[in-house]
Amino acid sequence: MKVDGKHFRSIWRDGRTALAIDQRRLPHEFIVTRLTTCADAAEAIRTMLVRGAPLIGATAAYGMALAMRDDQSNEAIDRAYETLIVARPTAINLKWALEEMRRVLRPLPPSARIDAAYARADDIAEEDVVINQGIAQNGLALIEAIAAKKPGETVNVLTHCNAGWLATVDWGTATAPIYLAHDRSINVHVWVDETRPRNQGASLTAWELGHHGVPHTVIADNTGGHLMQHGKVDLAIVGTDRVAANGDVCNKIGTYLKALAAHDNGVPFYVALPSPTIDFSVSDGVTQIPIEQRSAEEVTHMTGRTADGRIETVRIVPEGSPAANYAFDVTPARLVTGLITERGVLGASRAALAAAFPERIAAAAE
Amino acid sequence: MKVDGKHFRSIWRDGRTALAIDQRRLPHEFIVTRLTTCADAAEAIRTMLVRGAPLIGATAAYGMALAMRDDQSNEAIDRAYETLIVARPTAINLKWALEEMRRVLRPLPPSARIDAAYARADDIAEEDVVINQGIAQNGLALIEAIAAKKPGETVNVLTHCNAGWLATVDWGTATAPIYLAHDRSINVHVWVDETRPRNQGASLTAWELGHHGVPHTVIADNTGGHLMQHGKVDLAIVGTDRVAANGDVCNKIGTYLKALAAHDNGVPFYVALPSPTIDFSVSDGVTQIPIEQRSAEEVTHMTGRTADGRIETVRIVPEGSPAANYAFDVTPARLVTGLITERGVLGASRAALAAAFPERIAAAAE
Repeated sequence: MKVDGKHFRSIWRDGRTALAIDQRRLPHEFIVTRLTTCADAAEAIRTMLVRGAPLIGATAAYGMALAMRDDQSNEAIDRAYETLIVARPTAINLKWALEEMRRVLRPLPPSARIDAAYARADDIAEEDVVINQGIAQNGLALIEAIAAKKPGETVNVLTHCNAGWLATVDWGTATAPIYLAHDRSINVHVWVDETRPRNQGASLTAWELGHHGVPHTVIADNTGGHLMQHGKVDLAIVGTDRVAANGDVCNKIGTYLKALAAHDNGVPFYVALPSPTIDFSVSDGVTQIPIEQRSAEEVTHMTGRTADGRIETVRIVPEGSPAANYAFDVTPARLVTGLITERGVLGASRAALAAAFPERIAAAAE
Repeated sequence: MKVDGKHFRSIWRDGRTALAIDQRRLPHEFIVTRLTTCADAAEAIRTMLVRGAPLIGATAAYGMALAMRDDQSNEAIDRAYETLIVARPTAINLKWALEEMRRVLRPLPPSARIDAAYARADDIAEEDVVINQGIAQNGLALIEAIAAKKPGETVNVLTHCNAGWLATVDWGTATAPIYLAHDRSINVHVWVDETRPRNQGASLTAWELGHHGVPHTVIADNTGGHLMQHGKVDLAIVGTDRVAANGDVCNKIGTYLKALAAHDNGVPFYVALPSPTIDFSVSDGVTQIPIEQRSAEEVTHMTGRTADGRIETVRIVPEGSPAANYAFDVTPARLVTGLITERGVLGASRAALAAAFPERIAAAAE
């Protein structure tokens, strides 16, 4: 998507190096960092210079290619795998991308490995873009249907956290239909949940939408219910970290509260996802998906820019008051209107998911 | 309640002046300010050195007494009224306290007005404490009933915003039953919603509870639904700015979302209030109560303390991204388990409120 009129992806190749946007500096600074070695890629993943499951996968793939540039041996493949896999141990896409790179590289003679590694890494990045374009197309129909019912009026979409192009290689998941609608000249406006405690909505989603020119308004996470109650939200679209086989949706903490408000007010609540995000090994999301607890400091401290331009971190909770930081919650499938995937908009139910992905059901049963 | 082992109220008399805690400095600094003139009291209200409806009323009453110290004429009464009423034009308790002070003072000879003013101001403060003690007693029974069902275990209460002793003269409303339960050696633990965008939960409620020794944990506003889903909340108690005749509850933005989560998980959701907060002139809260929109800066900026002790304000939203700041929302009565008042725990319904306050219904009909 665009930054100040120029098209960017979150990671891209430049000769035999890769360039990535340093997302730790957003929204205060836009800095592109060059990744020259496998260690650079691992460090970028570890320090969250890059984040978002698809982008982590693409970065790991480029990390393997960067390793091959220096050493094309089997040992180098294994070393790169080990270096990269520990950078973010719970990231499913990271493991998938590394296994895919190893699968492609191992059978080749060392002399063919450099070109093959860069080609496969490019393809992994491109495949993410194509999936998200599919989500964009399928979600666009939902926005167009609302726009058709209120000609000349704005379609108001609420989103939570950042499931935007910065979390993927391009387009994003939840944002993909929004960007496509905007590019097709539909009047969309986005209510952007701040998304405490890490503020990915206020810092990343608002930044993305603003730079691409999509009208938006940042709101405190407390606000969505009131807006829905008063007809100011036409639909909600969020991303997800994992969808269970029964359609339960694990996403950033607070998603469940917005889904409740949407349900209470008859507002459609959609979840956008690439289909690999569905985990058919989890039969019930609410009871089975473990919820990560992160550092209390993310709740007690806040970083931003002072009026005179300095970046400062301030404590906002009294000394001595403990804080808890549950990173995700699970929205029961009964509150989800539909799942926007690259294969179409699916019902959030065991039956609908099984019908759409028979091959995955078979694989999960093995 | 206690601050470092010593009992404090939010405002108290010291000879012919008043002392108040400067709430703008909390939680980073505990500073007691002396109010010596009527102008001091008006300034304290205007700048939110004091906040919370009952405390604003008490401060205005002392402001009138401070005015009498200098000048006991009818003109001085009128001047003080005018000076104080504009300090926070929408505060119902402010108007009520000033009219009450004028009603008491006008019939008296000027020579009797100083003593009478201080006496009535003391009474207004004391009446608030007595009402809140009534709320404490009535709410305590709810906590005791839960404690009895799980002997030896902690009773987990979730609260939103600050309806604590700092918002009143002492005890608070939502916190009153919690303090009483704690003082009676019931194991209570409070989940404190941060309460963006003004952070009254993280900055004031956490500070209060911590200094009184009540176990508590600060959480992002997004977290309550997840906690309720997993049995970590036994009941929710919040305050309110206005209750409509049908039991709809206007309170800090985000209250509605927590009420939805409580309802979805069978968690009792109580609202604590002094009965004057019920507005029998509003027949339907959701459709009739206007919602104040405040400065976007409260969303886009955050103030706290740096590691080396400086107080800094930082921007946390990208330059150019607009923000909206709806200050309150209305929770429909159907989501409210009960209203904890000084007259008992009432159903949140037109019938229950009419039965408990027949005299108010009659007055509203006039």
